[in-house]
Amino acid sequence: MSTADSNGSQQRGADTGTHLAGAIEGICHRLPVRIYYEDTDFSGIVYHASYLRFMERGRSDFLRLAGVMHTALAAGETGEPLAFAVRAMTLDFLAPARIDDVVMVETRFSGLAGARLTLVQQVVLAGGPQAGRVLVSAEVTVVVITLEGRARRLPPAVRERLAAFLPPAG
Amino acid sequence: MSTADSNGSQQRGADTGTHLAGAIEGICHRLPVRIYYEDTDFSGIVYHASYLRFMERGRSDFLRLAGVMHTALAAGETGEPLAFAVRAMTLDFLAPARIDDVVMVETRFSGLAGARLTLVQQVVLAGGPQAGRVLVSAEVTVVVITLEGRARRLPPAVRERLAAFLPPAG
Amino acid sequence: MSTADSNGSQQRGADTGTHLAGAIEGICHRLPVRIYYEDTDFSGIVYHASYLRFMERGRSDFLRLAGVMHTALAAGETGEPLAFAVRAMTLDFLAPARIDDVVMVETRFSGLAGARLTLVQQVVLAGGPQAGRVLVSAEVTVVVITLEGRARRLPPAVRERLAAFLPPAG
Amino acid sequence: MSTADSNGSQQRGADTGTHLAGAIEGICHRLPVRIYYEDTDFSGIVYHASYLRFMERGRSDFLRLAGVMHTALAAGETGEPLAFAVRAMTLDFLAPARIDDVVMVETRFSGLAGARLTLVQQVVLAGGPQAGRVLVSAEVTVVVITLEGRARRLPPAVRERLAAFLPPAG
Repeated sequence: MSTADSNGSQQRGADTGTHLAGAIEGICHRLPVRIYYEDTDFSGIVYHASYLRFMERGRSDFLRLAGVMHTALAAGETGEPLAFAVRAMTLDFLAPARIDDVVMVETRFSGLAGARLTLVQQVVLAGGPQAGRVLVSAEVTVVVITLEGRARRLPPAVRERLAAFLPPAG
Repeated sequence: MSTADSNGSQQRGADTGTHLAGAIEGICHRLPVRIYYEDTDFSGIVYHASYLRFMERGRSDFLRLAGVMHTALAAGETGEPLAFAVRAMTLDFLAPARIDDVVMVETRFSGLAGARLTLVQQVVLAGGPQAGRVLVSAEVTVVVITLEGRARRLPPAVRERLAAFLPPAG
Repeated sequence: MSTADSNGSQQRGADTGTHLAGAIEGICHRLPVRIYYEDTDFSGIVYHASYLRFMERGRSDFLRLAGVMHTALAAGETGEPLAFAVRAMTLDFLAPARIDDVVMVETRFSGLAGARLTLVQQVVLAGGPQAGRVLVSAEVTVVVITLEGRARRLPPAVRERLAAFLPPAG
Repeated sequence: MSTADSNGSQQRGADTGTHLAGAIEGICHRLPVRIYYEDTDFSGIVYHASYLRFMERGRSDFLRLAGVMHTALAAGETGEPLAFAVRAMTLDFLAPARIDDVVMVETRFSGLAGARLTLVQQVVLAGGPQAGRVLVSAEVTVVVITLEGRARRLPPAVRERLAAFLPPAG
C-alpha cells in the first residue's frame, strides 16, 4: 500500500506532513484541531455537524499513521477500489467549543468484524481552565464500500494493520 | 414573535419564501433538498455530515412553519436571547445519495419536555426507480440554550406552538 | 444526455424536483436560497465561503434547466467522463445576509469559448424592506475537465444547449 | 488583548496549540493543511470553496501569531465588539489538490489602510514530485466590522501589531 499511484497523489500525501496527523499513544489516537470561523454558527458556538468533520479527520489520521491511506484504497491497491463510509453514529453533544479554541479529537477502535470497524471518539477541550472537558462523545460504525456503494469485507492488509490497535479482549 | 427586529432580518425572513420551507402534512414536515457538488465527497457519494445539515434545515423549516423563528428567539422576543442546540443524535446511514439527486427530509416531533425537544427524522430518496428508499434515519434531541450556552426551558409561546405537532398520546 | 445511467442516479435526478431548480427568465437564471445555521458564523452573518456554495447551486440548476446534467457528464454520455471546475472568480462582498433570510442567486452567461464558460452572478436579498439589495457580485470562469483534471473543450451538445443563453452580441 | 474574557474562551485559545498556528517567516505566514474527505467533491478533487476555508485559516493564524485574537476583538477588548469580514477576493484556481494531500497556505499582507487589510495568498502543494506547485492564487481585501455589520477603522492596537508585517515601501 505504499507505492505511488499514477497521479502522484498518494506519494504526495504519504511523504509529507506526518506531524500534521496527530499521534498514537498506546491504542488511542489524538489529533488537535483549531476552531476557525468556518466551524461556528450565528449562535456563537461550533455548529454541531462540524464535530463530525473533526472526528472524520481523527479517524483518517489514525488510519494514516497505521499505514492505511484513502488514496491507496481508492486506487485499488488492495484489490478493487474501496472507500470508508460511516454506517452509524451515536452522538452526545455535552458542551460547546468556540472560535479560537483548540480541541483534541481522541479516537479508539472498539471492534473489527467483517466489513465493520467500530470506534469510540471524544472531542475534548485542550488548554485553558476547562482543559479536559469532554465536549462530544461518540460511537461510530464505519464500513468499507466499493465506489458503487456496496459493502466489502475489510481487505486483509487493512485488517492486519488495524488489529494491533484493538483493546485487549476480556 | 412576529414584530420586526431592529436590523430587519426577521421581517426579511418572515415575509418571503415560505414556499421554500417545505410543508407540514398532519404532524410530519417534509422538505425536498437537492444534492449539489458541496454535499458530495471524492468517494462519489454524499459526505455523511451533509445529512446533518439537511436535517437541520428540516427542523428549522418545521419550526418556521409552526411560527417559531430563529431570528425572533435570538433577538430575545421570548425573554432572553435564545437559540436551539443539538444535544444528542442517533444516526443510521442506510444508503447513499449522489450528485443531482433530490431527497426528502421528513421530520416529526416525538416529545417535548422541559428544555428538550425530541424528533424523529428520515432522509428519503425522492423520484426515480428507488423513490421512497430511506437513506438516513435519525433520532435527535434538541435543547434551548442562552447565547452563553446555558440550557433553558422552552419558552411557553414556543411550547404552545409546537405541542400541536406531537403524536397523540398512548 | 437523458438516458438512465447504470446506477440510476441520473434518472433519479432528472425526473424529480424541477421546481427546486429555480427558473430561467430570458437569459437570467434565478434560484431562491434560504439561510440556515450551517451558512452563518459566530460573527452573526453568513460566512463568506457560503456564498460560493450558493452560486454553485445557481450554476448547477441553470445547467440542469438547460438540459446539462452533472451525472450525465460524469457518466461519460458526451464522450469521456467530464466535470465542471471553477478556474477563476472575482468577488465583491457588499453586504451580509443573516439567519432566516432568503436570498436570490441570479446567474447569467457572459461567454462561451473553447473549454471556458464565463458567468456573471449576483446574490440579492429577497423580501423585506431591503429587498433587491445586492449582497455579493461575482464574475466566474468555469472550465470542463476530465476526472484526472485535464481541461477539455465543451462537448458540442453542451455548447449548443448553452449558446441560447448568451447575451446578444454587440 | 491578552486578558481572559468572562467565558474563558480567549484564554483557552491563547495558551494552547500555538504549534497548530503555522509559522511566520519574515513577512510570510505559512500554514500546512491536510486534505480530508470533507474538502473534496464527487469529481475527485478539492471543492473550490474549500480553498477559501483554508485561506481564512491562514489569515486567522497569521493574526493569532501577530497577537490579534478573534475572541478578544469580539469581546470588545479594543473598544466595541468587532470582527473581520472579507470584502473582496480575486481567485485563480490553477491546479487541484486531492484527498490525503498536504497543502501550504502562504499569506502576506500587502496593505493596511483605514478599515481595510489587503493580503496576497497562495495555496501550494507540499511534498511529493509536484511540491511547490501553486494550486490557488488570491488577492483578498478584509475589513473590520461591528457585529451589526458596519465598517470600522482598524483599532490602533491591531494596526500597530500588523504594520510590522507590511512589505517595505517602494
